[in-house]
Amino acid sequence: MAGKSPEEQHPVKAYGWAARDSSGILSPFNFSRRATGDHDVRIKILYCGICHSDLQAAKNEMGFYKYPLVPGFETVGVASEVGSKVTKVKVGDKVAVGIIVGSCGECNECVNDRDCYCPRMTAAYGSVDHDGTPTYGGFSNETVVNEKFVFRFPENLSLPGGAPLLNAGITVYSPMRFYGLDKPGMHLGVVGLGGLGHLAVKFGKAFGAKVTVISTSPSKKDEAINFLGADGFLVSGDAEQMQAAAGTLDGIIDTVPVVHSIETLLWLLKNHSKLVLVGATGGSFDLPILPLAMGRRTVASSIGGSTKEAQEMLDFAAEHNITANVEIIPMDYVNTAMERVEKSDVRYRFVIDIGNTLTPPPES
Amino acid sequence: MAGKSPEEQHPVKAYGWAARDSSGILSPFNFSRRATGDHDVRIKILYCGICHSDLQAAKNEMGFYKYPLVPGFETVGVASEVGSKVTKVKVGDKVAVGIIVGSCGECNECVNDRDCYCPRMTAAYGSVDHDGTPTYGGFSNETVVNEKFVFRFPENLSLPGGAPLLNAGITVYSPMRFYGLDKPGMHLGVVGLGGLGHLAVKFGKAFGAKVTVISTSPSKKDEAINFLGADGFLVSGDAEQMQAAAGTLDGIIDTVPVVHSIETLLWLLKNHSKLVLVGATGGSFDLPILPLAMGRRTVASSIGGSTKEAQEMLDFAAEHNITANVEIIPMDYVNTAMERVEKSDVRYRFVIDIGNTLTPPPES
Repeated sequence: MAGKSPEEQHPVKAYGWAARDSSGILSPFNFSRRATGDHDVRIKILYCGICHSDLQAAKNEMGFYKYPLVPGFETVGVASEVGSKVTKVKVGDKVAVGIIVGSCGECNECVNDRDCYCPRMTAAYGSVDHDGTPTYGGFSNETVVNEKFVFRFPENLSLPGGAPLLNAGITVYSPMRFYGLDKPGMHLGVVGLGGLGHLAVKFGKAFGAKVTVISTSPSKKDEAINFLGADGFLVSGDAEQMQAAAGTLDGIIDTVPVVHSIETLLWLLKNHSKLVLVGATGGSFDLPILPLAMGRRTVASSIGGSTKEAQEMLDFAAEHNITANVEIIPMDYVNTAMERVEKSDVRYRFVIDIGNTLTPPPES
Repeated sequence: MAGKSPEEQHPVKAYGWAARDSSGILSPFNFSRRATGDHDVRIKILYCGICHSDLQAAKNEMGFYKYPLVPGFETVGVASEVGSKVTKVKVGDKVAVGIIVGSCGECNECVNDRDCYCPRMTAAYGSVDHDGTPTYGGFSNETVVNEKFVFRFPENLSLPGGAPLLNAGITVYSPMRFYGLDKPGMHLGVVGLGGLGHLAVKFGKAFGAKVTVISTSPSKKDEAINFLGADGFLVSGDAEQMQAAAGTLDGIIDTVPVVHSIETLLWLLKNHSKLVLVGATGGSFDLPILPLAMGRRTVASSIGGSTKEAQEMLDFAAEHNITANVEIIPMDYVNTAMERVEKSDVRYRFVIDIGNTLTPPPES
């Protein structure tokens, strides 16, 4: 099957937008999806969020992707067909798919509900599926996923507003839970106010924390406090302000997508607390030993979250009415949107209106 | 009192060896100790270990020390007089003093038995005592310490062999306990085989761990395995060996006293586990984000341990017959010893035989 063209690999015609080379520019693409297996859910995709990792993947910055590449890790829609053995959802249900569409199910990570760390984890795009064909993401009309990796999408959540929870949301929610940054009354720092950061503020408030946003841009103060409900704001480049706040935070989640200085952030922490880096996907930080040793502070990270945690996160979001603030765009705006993502020119997440604006390309 | 000469500050004449300038060279020094207060224990010093931090302090590499400086954080001896309200020890008991000789007793750290993180912690040397006079360390004939900071030295432990436990020992024991590197059956890595490292191996074995030593020197393999009882040995510069061992360790304690590459160490760790840096006291490490994120690994550190932990550590050492391997030297060998410490030319710790070789200098 792997030798066949994308259009012939599977029986069901599908279409979306794909990057073809390292320019990262997307264009219409015809491919195919498998038939609905006994345990599969076929999903009519309605919305898909755009994240910074889609941009990096489209340009193959990590070097391990193959083209054509259909991005999209934040996929929401409606179940259009379900396999005979599917019990989790029924046709017509709102459903979602995140980063993970497969895992071995047998390793230490899988059996402990940490499938995101399974060494044979299959990602929603850019992976090789169990049948040897490439996976294609949510910038497409439909997808077919084993029900284990399909989420029940809460009825009261907005579909476009909820889409970014599947990647941006879980990327902050999982480490906030795992590293104990979820305790009521704690004073939490959130570094960076993009797609991840604005959701970290919302989760932090929902956990009952006092949240201080730390940003390079003084202009974001009003928005952080008056729009997102943060309790405090620090300009990271303001040495006096940072010095005055030293030792006041019980934990920091740092969502900045590139390498940056963390020394003053470490000094913001109380003793025995953690800085969790979840934004950067490559490169090396400069780690000064003094703030770590003198206060028994810790630097940690994580990648996404498990399937189990993602469903828990969606349900928690629904309970606390947490959605991303999104700018809904038509499919053919995607390349402009990608450019704007690169410049952080979005508040706070682009979501493509797949259902209304993705049209079938001409047959190739 | 602070304006008086060291010999006149207190009523009891004392003597030791002090550094006078940033050459770090020590020479005989006359000073004085306070009278024994109600809660004080006067200690006739018998042995004192030399640690890398003594060398840094003598040369004032951190920049905050004042001369004359009498080093010595690893002090053991016998109680020669006790105050009227002392209950912990009696005259003639074997006792020890480590880094801490005072703390505020009121802060969040103190009330939670973490006095080593008290912002007003008084160190055994180079600190300002509560009466405004400088503290002088264990390279001296006697000292006077509040009983809160005096340890009962276990009867069955060798005094010179046990001295290094007070600094080197607690520096590895405390983080191994705090960060959970103390679980039977876990596979532990110990990086560096000096004063700290060789004790980390011994504590690791006593905790019931499988211990692998990681060193730059292939020549240390025989010693690590056949002399110290380590289960495995890796040469950190051997890429093939390190690659083959990737993902096999449940935790690493890194005792190397200078900044070095930690990337391959991080990859040695299993997912969700910790690299604990306890050797370096300054500088910045290069922290690659990928091994941290991909395996939810953590980098941590700590500084010493609390008074409570240090007593616990001494009792644990006694129970498991853990002492340092030491080279006992006379007082007048100290400058040569310091030079050898700088070159890591010691297996594994110098201990000065204060009791038999420190003689009173001529009156100044």
